[in-house]
Order: sequence, then C-alpha cells, then structure tokens
Amino acid sequence: MQEVSNAGPLSGVVVVDLSSVIVGPACSLALADHGAEVIKIEPPSGDLMRKLGGGAKHPGMTGKFMNFNRNKKSVCIDLKKTEGQEMLYTILSTADVFISNMRMEALAKLGLDWATLQDKNPKLIYTQVLAFGKGGEYFNRPAYDTVIQSASGVAGTFEKSSGEPRFVPLVMTDHITGMIAAQAIGFALYRRSKTNKGELIEIPMFETMSAFVLREHLGNMTFKPAIGPIGDARILDKNNRPVKTKDGYISISPNTNEQAFAFFDLIARPELKEDKRFNSVESRTKHSVEYYTLRSESLREKTSAQWIELFEQHDIPCMRYNSLEDLVEDPHLRQVGFLSETMHPSEGPILEMGLTNHYSGGVRTEFTPAPRLGEHTAAVMREHGFSPEAIQRAIDQKIIFCETEEH
Amino acid sequence: MQEVSNAGPLSGVVVVDLSSVIVGPACSLALADHGAEVIKIEPPSGDLMRKLGGGAKHPGMTGKFMNFNRNKKSVCIDLKKTEGQEMLYTILSTADVFISNMRMEALAKLGLDWATLQDKNPKLIYTQVLAFGKGGEYFNRPAYDTVIQSASGVAGTFEKSSGEPRFVPLVMTDHITGMIAAQAIGFALYRRSKTNKGELIEIPMFETMSAFVLREHLGNMTFKPAIGPIGDARILDKNNRPVKTKDGYISISPNTNEQAFAFFDLIARPELKEDKRFNSVESRTKHSVEYYTLRSESLREKTSAQWIELFEQHDIPCMRYNSLEDLVEDPHLRQVGFLSETMHPSEGPILEMGLTNHYSGGVRTEFTPAPRLGEHTAAVMREHGFSPEAIQRAIDQKIIFCETEEH
Repeated sequence: MQEVSNAGPLSGVVVVDLSSVIVGPACSLALADHGAEVIKIEPPSGDLMRKLGGGAKHPGMTGKFMNFNRNKKSVCIDLKKTEGQEMLYTILSTADVFISNMRMEALAKLGLDWATLQDKNPKLIYTQVLAFGKGGEYFNRPAYDTVIQSASGVAGTFEKSSGEPRFVPLVMTDHITGMIAAQAIGFALYRRSKTNKGELIEIPMFETMSAFVLREHLGNMTFKPAIGPIGDARILDKNNRPVKTKDGYISISPNTNEQAFAFFDLIARPELKEDKRFNSVESRTKHSVEYYTLRSESLREKTSAQWIELFEQHDIPCMRYNSLEDLVEDPHLRQVGFLSETMHPSEGPILEMGLTNHYSGGVRTEFTPAPRLGEHTAAVMREHGFSPEAIQRAIDQKIIFCETEEH
Repeated sequence: MQEVSNAGPLSGVVVVDLSSVIVGPACSLALADHGAEVIKIEPPSGDLMRKLGGGAKHPGMTGKFMNFNRNKKSVCIDLKKTEGQEMLYTILSTADVFISNMRMEALAKLGLDWATLQDKNPKLIYTQVLAFGKGGEYFNRPAYDTVIQSASGVAGTFEKSSGEPRFVPLVMTDHITGMIAAQAIGFALYRRSKTNKGELIEIPMFETMSAFVLREHLGNMTFKPAIGPIGDARILDKNNRPVKTKDGYISISPNTNEQAFAFFDLIARPELKEDKRFNSVESRTKHSVEYYTLRSESLREKTSAQWIELFEQHDIPCMRYNSLEDLVEDPHLRQVGFLSETMHPSEGPILEMGLTNHYSGGVRTEFTPAPRLGEHTAAVMREHGFSPEAIQRAIDQKIIFCETEEH
C-alpha cells in the first residue's frame, strides 16, 4: 500500500487521521515522519489550517499547513453522507490507528464512535484528543490553544514572573498534547504487539498541560501543609531572560559550582566564590533573585561573540540568541542538514525540515510533499478495493472529492 | 521483578535511567507512569534536582524532584569504580531501555557507550538525549533549558510579539524533549516487537525545539523566495493574551464565523459581521492586529464570570484564567481526580498528580512514592542475583550506597 520507500520504526503502520488544525496533525506528523502511512481525511472545506495558516501561494496551501502535513495523503470525503461513512469504514477496516479531535457526539453522529469502530476492527487503536477530560465540569467545552494556556497555568507562570498573564507565542498546548498523543499511540502499538487487541485512548489537553505546568511548579505546595509559595523561584525570576550584551543578547546557565566559579572569574568578581549567597548550588538557588540580577547586569561591556568565546573556553553553558530569522540561517542547523531546499510539485521551491531524531534501526528516508486537498482520494480508494466506476460514481454524487483547480 | 500491580501499556518493560535534572527524568517518568519499571541510577551525590528543585522538608527531597521521580526506584552506584560499572552491567543485561543525557565521552569513560552495551544486550534500546546533534558545530557544548530556549527561537517568538526576547517560565525545552524521547522509545519498542533487536536513538534538544518553533512560524519563509516575513502574525500579535475583564482575565478564541459573529453580537457590535475586515476566517486572519485589539478592549464592562456564562451559552471557546494557585483548586481537576492527597513514607502528606491519559486496555493503578537516594539499591541488586554478602561488600567498599540518614 505504500509507494514510498522508508524504514522508520512505524513502517507498515496505517493511520487514519480525521483531525484538523494543530493538535491532531502534530500527532499524525510525528507518526508519518517515523514511517507510518498517514491517510488524512478532510471534509470538502478542508482542514481549517489550510486557510488559517497565514501566507500561501495558492489557496489552501499555507506554509503552516504544509509544515504540519508533509508525508501524509489527503482523502476528501463528505462524512455527512452515509455513503461517505461507508467508504471510510472500508479504509478503517484494515487501519491500525484512528485519530480525532472532534467532540464525542459529533463522532457518534458520523458513526465513528469507539464502539462502532471497535466492532468493525478490533485491532484499531482509537485515539481521541479531548479539550477537557470526562468526569469534570469543563468536559465538552470547545477549546483552542489559548483557552488551554489560560486555564492550565501556562499564562499563570507569566503573571508570577512579570506581573501580568500572557501566552507563549506558540500554539504550545496543542503542539505538546499532539506529541503526547503520538507517544500514547506508540505505547498502545507496543501493547498491541503482545495482546493483538486495539484500544481506546483519550488525551485531554487541559489535564495534560496542567500536569506539565504543575510538575515543574507545584514545588512547595507538593507538601501538605505547603512549606512555601507555589512556583519554582529560579524559573519564575523576572531576570531569568536572555542577558543583554554590548551588541545583543546571549543566554548563560552557570549552574554547577565549577561553572559558576569560572563565571565569577570571567566577570572579574572572583570574591563571589566565597560569598555565602553564591558559593554552592543550594545557596545560589536560595538567592536566585540576586544571582539572576548579577547575571543580567554583568555582560554589558563585551559583545555577544566575545562572551561566547570566553564562556566556551571555560565550559560554561552559554548560547547565542537566535531571532526567528537567525534560526533559519543558524550554522549548526545547516550543517546537520535540518533545513534543505526541495521542490514542492505545486508550490515550487520550499524549505523542508528534516528529521531531528536518529535511529540506528533506520529512519524514513523518502518524504512526500504536503498534499493538496483530495490529492490522494482516488488512489487511496483504489488501493482499498473500490472500482474505477464506484469511485467515479461517488465523485459524481459529491460523496468524495478529488483535487480540483479550485481546491 | 515488579512488586507493584499495574496494567499500563508498558507493563513488563524495564528501563535503566542514568539521566538527571529534567529532560531524562521527564522521559522516564512518562515510561514509569505507563507501567514500565524504571530503575533510576544515581551517583553518590544524587540527581542534581534533589538539591536544585527548591523547597524540601528533608535534604534531597525537593517537591520538584519528587514530582518528576515518583514510580521509580533509586539505585545509587559509584560508576567511577570498575566494580560499580560491573554491577550496572548486570542490571543492564536484562533491561529493555537505557536512557542518558550525559555527553558521549563521559559515557564512554564509564564503559556505557552504545557499542559496549549493545554487545552485552543486543535487545537494549539505547537512548541518548543530546544538547546538540552530531555533525554540527555546537555538538558537545553543554546545555541547559535556557540555552536551548535562547538558540531554538523560543525566546525569539517573544522578541517578535513584544520587542524583547524572553524565556517561557517553564523548563520547557527539557520537558518537551523528554516527552519526545519517551515517544521515540515507544516507537523503538514497537519496532523491536517485530525485529527482536534493540537500537540506538539520539534526541538532540536544539534540533527538536527548532523544529517545534519553525513548524509553527516558518510560514511565509517556507517558500523560496519568501512570500512575506517569518512568523504566524496571529500567534505573535501583542494582544494575543488573556483579556482583561472588570475583575480579572479570561481567554477567548472566537475563530470560526459562527463563533466570531456570536461574539460580535454579545459585545453589542453586530455591524462587524458585515465588516470586510472581520466577516470571514481569512479576513480576520489578515486583519488579526485589529481583531485582537478589538477583543482586548471589549470585555471591561462585565466580570469574568458574567462573560464566561454568556460565551458558554453561545458555544464560543472561552475559559477562566487560572493563576498557579487557582490551578491547584480548579474544580474540574478535582472532579476528574487529577490531584489527590496521599502519604509519602518520609515526607508526610503530599498532593499527588494522577495520570492524565485514559487507556481502555488498562493503566498503572498502583503508584510508588518518589524514592530517597539509594532507597532501592539493595533490593534491586538482590533481584539481579547478587548475594547478601556481595551486596554488603560493595556497600563497605563504597561502590554502592543504600539510603542513610544523611541522604
């Protein structure tokens, strides 16, 4: 069923992905990049990210959509029609994984609830990303990334560090939950290799992100009664930021004694090695406000390049600051081949991101371009046993849609 | 070998975790929570997070350490001694997974390089979290979370949205890379179920996080030549924040036409439904600056509770803003049983976080408390065939360490 040659760890796994926007597509992208065959099921209007994803050369092919959907096939079906549901059932009957971020009732209306699909394919791993888990009062509320950032304490970390809640300028909670959903699918595939049975997995975004934040910041409130205020003071310190140099910013993290003492020497403050506030990991943790203030004010007299050279010589963790533009030109990323120029069949020359993880057992080596809406509808239907006549009939009846100029 | 009863998807998987601080422990926590037996190998000084993790009732048992290390066993070995290495080899000979975030040369010095371990246990999945991948000029530089936030564009997203680079007040890149390492291990376990062979996995933090950021923000620069500036303007908008109400903040995300039009009605601006800047997803995306400004200024006249009630009635994605303190008291989290009070054997009553994902095939049901340093040294050695005499000899020679008052 797979034309691409690849040897990723999920080679042979077939994923039917009904999800849209970021959380589900991020999940299925991780599976696709690791070798799975991902069949992306889109409604006639297409994944919302085709439109919401910012700049594009052609309608429906925004850069953001493309970067979350390469290595997938697009099959466009009207699932509001019974015949569309039946065609999807045929594809699902031999699939390994199903992914959705629709609400449960909506899935049930389309005949795609877990009970129905389990009956048709007992080996199916049915994955549902929820905004909020069952059993709590937020269950079934609609959500987007910012809704979850607001509720899960991500925005709250900023209130602690700078007095005002704000969001991370990333679709961070969608993206992280998507990674964790892919993790869960890997674990379930492993279990299935022993039990030969599929299962239902539910990943609630709010709970997932609350655990992410609280694991880091519950701290003193882990204990009952609490032994101090909530939050990791070092991380929340207002001066825990890139540090200003003569000509820009750099980042430094002298954490161990060896690193901190070398740092004090380099900023010409050797006496701090004996200072009770700074002479051990515990004391620097306790006096993190003073330590961060010291760091934030000590690098103004040399350029970023000068400081980095000095810190590197002394094995002190430090790093250039990359703006988004810098990142695309970063020498290391270029050297490891992370970014390369390739040709997209309809969108022309593009920058493509390579795989970041290395597996000695083999990785996916052939990439397929982000699909146009319905690009693989007919091919996937043929592979699943539909005759050319049946496919044409379904097209004529607007049950399935192939790529058109308009899409 | 496992005393705890559990039925998580990784039940039966044995993980030897040599990592410390956040990235590795976050990875092995995900494995442990899903049912794996995680043997945490600590040096005599213990995981740095035992000290660096903020408040504690007893030395070495900070809240942060505890929240990343429950469901694991602590085995304390001096790996600088050949006899310590030999004892670890015995444990590794039947393990499924090895995790480290040490640098390669340091691992080789301890006899724990991939070639050596593969020879001793060909089924071992050897997982190495790197700061920077091989083949690029940053390889082998030391790194902490902030170093990666600075280099990978995370800090850069803030420069775009508010003029100044800053860090997310979370150990975000460690934490995310740890989740992705656990994902990779799940995929490799699945592959091993077919090949019966282990493999080497390398997870470079910098590349992982650069991909995370660029997938969201490469946008217009995906195309060659670029069709506009880098970055998703909606996400980077300075008003993409929790919105101020009469008495606090809430979050809203009216994205579809249905949601946006209902929102315009509720803020008594129905004419905006016809406004060319706001009458479609595409136009609101194009005019995101105006749309966010409008949103940020339209909620001052009602309280958070009043707005949320109204928005919920109209199915507009919205949410309360939770400070970190609010989060611990959040009603939904309590209702789903995410936070519960349990008794830690040495640290007394604590708040424990439950599992967030649900698996119909079964989840780990019995939790073990975060271990004191060396708490399981003797028990694990016994399970691996060492005699009481051999264990006592190794203790006397300071090769292995059991829990003491001091630790």
